[in-house]
Amino acid sequence: MEQCRIGKQSVQFRNHPAILASASVAGKKESEGPLAGYFDICGKDTKFAQASWEKAESKMQEIALDSARYKAGIRNANIDVLFAGDLLNQCIGSSFSLRDTGIPFLGLYGACSTMAEALCLSAVMVDGGYARIAAALTSSHFASAERQYRFPLVYGGQRTPTAQWTVTGAGCVLLGQKGDGPYINAATFGSIVDFGIKDAANMGAAMAPAAYSTIRTHLDDLKKAPEDYDVIVTGDLGSLGSELLLELFRRDGVDLSTRHNDCGCLIFDPKTQDVHAGGSGCGCSATTLCGYFLKKMAQREYKNILFCATGALLSPLSTQQGESIPGICHAVSISTER
Amino acid sequence: MEQCRIGKQSVQFRNHPAILASASVAGKKESEGPLAGYFDICGKDTKFAQASWEKAESKMQEIALDSARYKAGIRNANIDVLFAGDLLNQCIGSSFSLRDTGIPFLGLYGACSTMAEALCLSAVMVDGGYARIAAALTSSHFASAERQYRFPLVYGGQRTPTAQWTVTGAGCVLLGQKGDGPYINAATFGSIVDFGIKDAANMGAAMAPAAYSTIRTHLDDLKKAPEDYDVIVTGDLGSLGSELLLELFRRDGVDLSTRHNDCGCLIFDPKTQDVHAGGSGCGCSATTLCGYFLKKMAQREYKNILFCATGALLSPLSTQQGESIPGICHAVSISTER
Repeated sequence: MEQCRIGKQSVQFRNHPAILASASVAGKKESEGPLAGYFDICGKDTKFAQASWEKAESKMQEIALDSARYKAGIRNANIDVLFAGDLLNQCIGSSFSLRDTGIPFLGLYGACSTMAEALCLSAVMVDGGYARIAAALTSSHFASAERQYRFPLVYGGQRTPTAQWTVTGAGCVLLGQKGDGPYINAATFGSIVDFGIKDAANMGAAMAPAAYSTIRTHLDDLKKAPEDYDVIVTGDLGSLGSELLLELFRRDGVDLSTRHNDCGCLIFDPKTQDVHAGGSGCGCSATTLCGYFLKKMAQREYKNILFCATGALLSPLSTQQGESIPGICHAVSISTER
Repeated sequence: MEQCRIGKQSVQFRNHPAILASASVAGKKESEGPLAGYFDICGKDTKFAQASWEKAESKMQEIALDSARYKAGIRNANIDVLFAGDLLNQCIGSSFSLRDTGIPFLGLYGACSTMAEALCLSAVMVDGGYARIAAALTSSHFASAERQYRFPLVYGGQRTPTAQWTVTGAGCVLLGQKGDGPYINAATFGSIVDFGIKDAANMGAAMAPAAYSTIRTHLDDLKKAPEDYDVIVTGDLGSLGSELLLELFRRDGVDLSTRHNDCGCLIFDPKTQDVHAGGSGCGCSATTLCGYFLKKMAQREYKNILFCATGALLSPLSTQQGESIPGICHAVSISTER
C-alpha cells in the first residue's frame, strides 16, 4: 500500500485535489470592513430575512454552498460528501442548512478550526478516490454565538480588551479530482495543546500554542521553511494571539513575522470597528480564505499558502467547572501548482 | 485514479482496514443490564471518581482509549489520527479526554451516529494510506445529557413512554492496515432525512427514516440483500423506532425483522430496567458494538454485520424555535473476512 503519511502528523496528497470553486458570505459589520470587496455576498441584514439568528446562520451556509455550486456548475447530487460544522450547540447551523440537500453529510466539531479540518478531510476523500467531489462548509454568527457563549445581547455586556468579535459569515470550498487549481498538496492534523489559559475572553492566547505546534510540525514533517510559503495564515488568533505565536517561533530562532498573517486581524479595521483583539469564529477563517486568499491566489498574487485555522475547544460549562482551554490547529497547504 | 466510490453514497475499501482492538466502558445501570458480561469495564460509580458528570464522561473515553491501546499493544504515539465526538455542547467530553494524549485529533459531531461516522472516517484514513493506525472514540453519559438536554436531574421530571434512556458508556475501536480482523469492507455515508417529527421525546421516530434511507441505499449501492448480513444493527432507534424501520422496509416488500437488531433495545432489560423505549446516546451503539457485537464476531458467532448508528441532529434551542428533528445514519460493513 502506498503511504501518504509523512513525518509526525502530516499527509502528502498523491493526486493534488483541486479547488473547483469557493464562496463567501459576510454579515453587515464584515461588509463594512477592509475585506468587503472580496466577499461574494455581503448581507445588509444580519438576520438574512430569517426569524432568528440561528436560522440566519443556517441560511448563510445555504447561500455559501449554493454560490460555490453555481460557480462550479454542479448540483447537490454531484457532491459525494460534505463536511460541515459550526459553533452552535449540537452544530444546528450545519444540520439545518443541509437538511433538504440530500448530500451525504459528515458533521464536524473543531470549533474555529472547522474550515481547515473540513478541507483536510475533503482532500483525503477526493485524493483517495472515496469522493469525486467533496465540500467543506462552515459558519459563525456574532449574535448566535454571543448569546450562547456569553451574555444576552440586550444585556449590553462590556467586553475585555483581549476579547475577540465573532465573525458573521460562512464559507464553502468545493474540491474535485480534476481542475485548474489551486490544489491541496498536503495537510497536517493537529493535536490538542493546552497551556493552562483559563480566561475565556482571551482565546487568542489559548490557541497560539496549538498554532505554533501545528505550524512547527508541518514545517518539520515536510522539511519546509516559512519562506516556502507566500503567507502562513492563522485562523483567529487576533492581535494578541498572533504576537504570542511570533514570540514562540522567535524562541526557536525563527522570524515568522514576514510570512504570518491572521484572518482575525485582517477582517476588521482595528481603528474604526472596535473589535478589540480582532475577529474570531469558524466564519472568520472561512470567509477570509474563500473571499480574500483564494481570490488573491486566482490573481496569482499568492502562489503558496499555509492555511492554519485555530480552535478553542472549550464550552461555557467547562469554564464554569474551572477547566483551562484546550487549543487545536489544523494546517492545509494550498498551491497554484501541483 | 482508482475509485473506491460505489453507487450513490457508498465506498468499498481496497485494503480492508483491520480492527486491531476495541474496548467498552459501561456505567452502573448498563452494568446491571443484559450485556453486562460483554463490557470490558463496568463502572460501579457513574462519576468514575470525578468531580462532575462531564468529567466522568471524559474519564470513560480515556479508559476506553487506554484499554483498546493495551489490548493492541500500542502507544498514543502510534495512533496517526483519532476521530471522536460526543453529545455535550462543544463536544467537551472528547476534547478534555484527549487533551494530554498528543494524538492528532479530528473532532466530529454526528449526535448518536458518531461511532459509525468515526469508523467510516478511520477506515478511509487507514485504507488510503493517510494513517497507519486510526482510532474511533465516543461516549455519552445519562446525567450529563439529561441536565443539558432536558431537566436538572434533581427535578425528578416524568418521562414520556416514547422517551429513551441515554446510555452511560464509551467505546473505542482501533483500526490498522494489517491484522487478523474483523475487517471494514465498505461504508455508506448518510444524508439528512427529516420527516417532520417535532417531539424531542420521540427520537426513535425521528431517526427511523434516516436509518431506512441509509440501509436501503447501502443494499442498493453494494447490490446486497439483508440476508448477506448476519445482523443489521441500528444504533438507538429503540423499540418504537425499530418498529417504524421494519414498517418502512415492509412497504418495499422487504422483511428486515429476521436480520435487524438495535443497540438501544439490546442494552437494557425492558422488564426490569424501566427505560421506556430503550437506550440512546453515542455510548449506546459504541458500547454495544465494542462490547457485544465485536466479541460475538471474535467468537465467529457473527461473520458479517452492518453497523448503522443513528443520530438526531436537534438541539434544545432548535426545538424551542419550533424546528423538526433532522435524522442521520451512517453504515459500516464489518466482516470476519476481507
